[in-house]
Amino acid sequence: MRYKITFSYDGSGFHGFQKQNGKRTVQEEIEKVLSSVNDAPVKIIGAGRTDSGVSATFQVAHFDFDKDITLYKLKSALNSYLPNDIYIKKVEEVSNDFHARYMVKLKTYEYKINTLEYNPIHRNQEFQYCKTLNVDKMKEAVKYFVGVHDFTSFASAQDKREDKVREIVSAKVLFKDGIITIVFKGKGFIKYQVRNMVGMLIKIGEGKYEPTCIKTILDEKDRTKASINAPAEGLTLVKIEY
Amino acid sequence: MRYKITFSYDGSGFHGFQKQNGKRTVQEEIEKVLSSVNDAPVKIIGAGRTDSGVSATFQVAHFDFDKDITLYKLKSALNSYLPNDIYIKKVEEVSNDFHARYMVKLKTYEYKINTLEYNPIHRNQEFQYCKTLNVDKMKEAVKYFVGVHDFTSFASAQDKREDKVREIVSAKVLFKDGIITIVFKGKGFIKYQVRNMVGMLIKIGEGKYEPTCIKTILDEKDRTKASINAPAEGLTLVKIEY
Repeated sequence: MRYKITFSYDGSGFHGFQKQNGKRTVQEEIEKVLSSVNDAPVKIIGAGRTDSGVSATFQVAHFDFDKDITLYKLKSALNSYLPNDIYIKKVEEVSNDFHARYMVKLKTYEYKINTLEYNPIHRNQEFQYCKTLNVDKMKEAVKYFVGVHDFTSFASAQDKREDKVREIVSAKVLFKDGIITIVFKGKGFIKYQVRNMVGMLIKIGEGKYEPTCIKTILDEKDRTKASINAPAEGLTLVKIEY
Repeated sequence: MRYKITFSYDGSGFHGFQKQNGKRTVQEEIEKVLSSVNDAPVKIIGAGRTDSGVSATFQVAHFDFDKDITLYKLKSALNSYLPNDIYIKKVEEVSNDFHARYMVKLKTYEYKINTLEYNPIHRNQEFQYCKTLNVDKMKEAVKYFVGVHDFTSFASAQDKREDKVREIVSAKVLFKDGIITIVFKGKGFIKYQVRNMVGMLIKIGEGKYEPTCIKTILDEKDRTKASINAPAEGLTLVKIEY
């Protein structure tokens, strides 16, 4: 039987979503509990990876599992045994051709920037930038990301995959109570793309570049142009749609 | 020279404000840095203690310090050397008769209860209650705390001091986006008083007691009556007024 789980986690205690030997990851914590409930190893496939320090209020994975157990009991068992920085929101039965990664239609990420005084209580869930930014310029600039583009200029230097063309369906900059929230919705993102886009928007908010430079940088397709990776703690995966 | 500092901290990493041998506390971290800047031991007097796990967005302390240093440099030095879960908001010179604890006029505490789904990201800054509560009954009940009362029924069993009479100047229950925020303003609070008052309000919100029971319990002056200590993580000290 194939199952789909929807879950949330506080990224500050994890070396990202994906399993890595000897490091605490979300995938490993969930697999450990599932394997123990199943009395046999269970491997989960996530909708996508999140980097070290990145949180999720809505992440999805699937797995195959043969133990006869109700959805309600499976959810309870998971939440009882998982550490308190992960929470399973929903457990569903899905058909065997469901795939958490390949079938994603839309992903939504939010990036939060605190422009006010340093906030130790929110330090793991907002970038503590603590200076004023020109939000209007950032609002103008963010529009240039929308559409189908080659995002090579906003890729990680380590990313060796060929295809850097992605579609951003919507992008907006909100500002409330001193917090800037940047929301990106897209079919998929390449490694560090969101944090590099945010890094560039911050430079524009600082007045170091004009909003139109986004277009120029996208056109240049040069990964040395916009490798200003905004800190992980500002980023949260907030929605996956199928 | 006497200095007043205003600061904030994430309580989740501390065994409370007050120094305790062998345990990480806010007082100890600040004294360590001040003593190092001063090249001699410095002791701080806080406006009040906060329990283990309780955060503050606004806490105050004073100390005497002879090193010749500008306020700006002292603030910078403190924030450079302090760990990132404490932040010094303000450093001021005060007269030698200023006392951070004895001169407090009003303290404000906020207690946050999440009535929605468990939120791992906010688990150190809200009580993850995750069930519905009757907010109207809690609003009605909270009014009985306002005024001068003997709070023996809401005291900690370990509190041996005689005088349990305190004044609550205002008390309110707010509800927004599934989060209940209870705000208490008073001249001073006894140990566990706020968390015991909140514990009782939760019981009322659950329908286990009627709002008027607050009055009855206060009148009984019996510390076994309301020792339902709501968890520390929901509580934040938000203001000290002199």
